[in-house]
Amino acid sequence: MNNIEPFIRDINDFPKPGIVFKDLTPLLNNPAATASCLQQLLTLVGDKPVDKVVGMEARGFFFGMLIAQALNAGFVPVRKPGKLPHHTLTETYALEYGTDSLEIHEDAIKPGDRVLIHDDVLATGGTAAAVCKLVERLGGEIVQCNFIMQLDFLDGKARLKGYDVGSVLTY
Amino acid sequence: MNNIEPFIRDINDFPKPGIVFKDLTPLLNNPAATASCLQQLLTLVGDKPVDKVVGMEARGFFFGMLIAQALNAGFVPVRKPGKLPHHTLTETYALEYGTDSLEIHEDAIKPGDRVLIHDDVLATGGTAAAVCKLVERLGGEIVQCNFIMQLDFLDGKARLKGYDVGSVLTY
Repeated sequence: MNNIEPFIRDINDFPKPGIVFKDLTPLLNNPAATASCLQQLLTLVGDKPVDKVVGMEARGFFFGMLIAQALNAGFVPVRKPGKLPHHTLTETYALEYGTDSLEIHEDAIKPGDRVLIHDDVLATGGTAAAVCKLVERLGGEIVQCNFIMQLDFLDGKARLKGYDVGSVLTY
Repeated sequence: MNNIEPFIRDINDFPKPGIVFKDLTPLLNNPAATASCLQQLLTLVGDKPVDKVVGMEARGFFFGMLIAQALNAGFVPVRKPGKLPHHTLTETYALEYGTDSLEIHEDAIKPGDRVLIHDDVLATGGTAAAVCKLVERLGGEIVQCNFIMQLDFLDGKARLKGYDVGSVLTY
């Protein structure tokens, strides 16, 4: 068993009935486990050069910032509509019912920037695919889509075909 | 001028007319400026022991995580209602018009934990005061309320009377 697995807590029926939510707050609460998780995320990246780390609101902010500082890269938050105050690009993507949107600051990525995408969980891959599009619309090159957890039964990797995908834990 | 000040961007009329929003995304985008800001936040804390760092959704997550790892402390997110999946405590506080609420996981703070509260901006102090209450209801002791920016014209320090308040930048 991976040494961070005991710090991921299953929450039944959250946010709605039938869903088992992977709660990473016990991991954040333990500094040694957090440090170990960070090291494992960095091992996934390897020695590939990274200019920017893009993290998704809000749970992608936690380790996204740590990874960015460890790699001496800038951190770029991707947020829900209306949260970023400057000029933004928007990408809208399909959910099970309806759609959702994400925004990025237009000046956050420069053409040619080598970009690591980070989020806590890879589920269906809809969010990560939308973020890849935002980064590429700004001329960035995706180095890796990097996750703490990957839920294989939702087949998110299929949505991210053509990209390097790395995860510390697979369920 | 403080060396991180050029990385804070004024956005006029955000989120509503008449408000000048302090945008810290250029700071996050620059790893050297981020590292310098982190060092200055740690200097504010000094050698006071810290067991947990509590950061407010969502901009308190950025440096909250970095501070927590640097101090070898746990990180505890405080979030909007319905976002934390386990048992929570809630604190409701007054806004200019209406009220808002924040939640913390009940098991995130142990009685006697020495707690650093972190957010990006100290404005009226309403949010920080509510977070202090949540932490104290769980038996935590507030070491410091720690901010990147303090807006003196909103007099947030008055709302945090009795607590140590530290800010890197004052406007």
